[in-house]
Amino acid sequence: MTFKTKLDAAWQQSGSMLMVGLDPDPKRFPDQLQGRKDAIYEFCREIVDLTAPFVCGFKPQIAYFSASGAEDQLEALCRHIKQNHPDLPLVLDAKRGDIGSTAEQYAREAYERYGADAVTVNPYMGHDSVAPYLEWKDRGIIVLCRTSNPGGSDLQFVEDSEGTPLYLRVASMVADQWNQNGQCGLVVGATFPQEIAKVRERVGDMPLLIPGIGAQGGSIPDTVQAGRDSRGLGMMINSSRAILYASKGEGWREAAAEAARATRDAINAVA
Amino acid sequence: MTFKTKLDAAWQQSGSMLMVGLDPDPKRFPDQLQGRKDAIYEFCREIVDLTAPFVCGFKPQIAYFSASGAEDQLEALCRHIKQNHPDLPLVLDAKRGDIGSTAEQYAREAYERYGADAVTVNPYMGHDSVAPYLEWKDRGIIVLCRTSNPGGSDLQFVEDSEGTPLYLRVASMVADQWNQNGQCGLVVGATFPQEIAKVRERVGDMPLLIPGIGAQGGSIPDTVQAGRDSRGLGMMINSSRAILYASKGEGWREAAAEAARATRDAINAVA
Repeated sequence: MTFKTKLDAAWQQSGSMLMVGLDPDPKRFPDQLQGRKDAIYEFCREIVDLTAPFVCGFKPQIAYFSASGAEDQLEALCRHIKQNHPDLPLVLDAKRGDIGSTAEQYAREAYERYGADAVTVNPYMGHDSVAPYLEWKDRGIIVLCRTSNPGGSDLQFVEDSEGTPLYLRVASMVADQWNQNGQCGLVVGATFPQEIAKVRERVGDMPLLIPGIGAQGGSIPDTVQAGRDSRGLGMMINSSRAILYASKGEGWREAAAEAARATRDAINAVA
Repeated sequence: MTFKTKLDAAWQQSGSMLMVGLDPDPKRFPDQLQGRKDAIYEFCREIVDLTAPFVCGFKPQIAYFSASGAEDQLEALCRHIKQNHPDLPLVLDAKRGDIGSTAEQYAREAYERYGADAVTVNPYMGHDSVAPYLEWKDRGIIVLCRTSNPGGSDLQFVEDSEGTPLYLRVASMVADQWNQNGQCGLVVGATFPQEIAKVRERVGDMPLLIPGIGAQGGSIPDTVQAGRDSRGLGMMINSSRAILYASKGEGWREAAAEAARATRDAINAVA
């Protein structure tokens, strides 16, 4: 089972292209969890179990754990996901990028320590900075291409002498050179549906991780129309804050589950 | 005291532009330390104390700690450096890069949890991905520009419509826009001395972090001639493996200290 086959099966079985991003910010936790020592784990574990029926996978964002020294809680959370939701891909959002000998260490962190099926990586340092990840044949990398934030344009929109913007060069490089074994995906932000369409045209049915709906304002219909592959699948459409923090009061569990269900339905409703 | 003033003072007081990179790989540790539970901390602490007389600072590489689940040992090491070598800048090599809300978390990790004076960051996601770090006015960021590895050329050498390669656009963007408060430096690899010279010409006296001498094969004389600033300073010339693993036997302490002293002297001998 590779990352790609696991993701394909998850799309089919779940009937969902929603991925829930786990960005635990203790200040925004429900009142019931405030002050608990394992609040990060407990909150994320509950979110995972509540939203699992409506998603194609989970994406913990490591910075939110590292800032609080909570790597042990991230380890426990990843174990929980793999034990209780073994069919749902686990994508570690870490956006790593370093020389080969260091990338070997980051690959161990993502795949061995946390058991991730895939990890997000940054392309700026080129082919030998991703090669160590690709040695793990059953795992995947998802490469930053066109990010959802305003500053993404600073470099990603720079055009080369032939008028090709950098993000499309990245898409081509990944599709033509790095994806020999079908281990790669790309990050393309929902805030730029025109660029999603250009990337999709360039890379065929390669999986796209699409942040930027929800709190960042990207449109679900525009995203789905631009990003679906030849089978009508092909996207991990991420939502984090809009689901995690749907409510802070007593009904937070129901609110989170309902937000996930409604987002899945909104994705599936696009004709 | 800002990162820049601390670094300036360290160059002057130490008479050295050598920075020791702390990339702890347990397989390569001295026989005496094999099997110890706190071997990562103990090895790095000894290296720090042995080489401190010969350096302008230390640069722990976080992947080597994270792969082994040794964040607690990195915390202890950073505390040790700050308590025992308070005048030597501590640069956390993490090469982070993410949207603003996540970058806030990474900044807390680097500056608050580990107490770093500066952290390395990746420019691919643009200005709002570095803005949260710059809110910490007494700290610095060192931005990837022209990296020392072979794959660095994949994107960093792409020329825009005016023939400017991407790494020089990054240098200009950092110098003209991100460095308003003098908090920035750039990473430029010793394996590309011609590019070091171009970056130096473009950014004036901005500090450069230069990996790639030692195990990666960069030339010290070429590096120093290309990279020194108007005062003959301006570089953190990093060496990791060539110093840390100078010997594995009983004399490893003396070998590491001697390697650091010799590297400092080789840097200072360049006319």
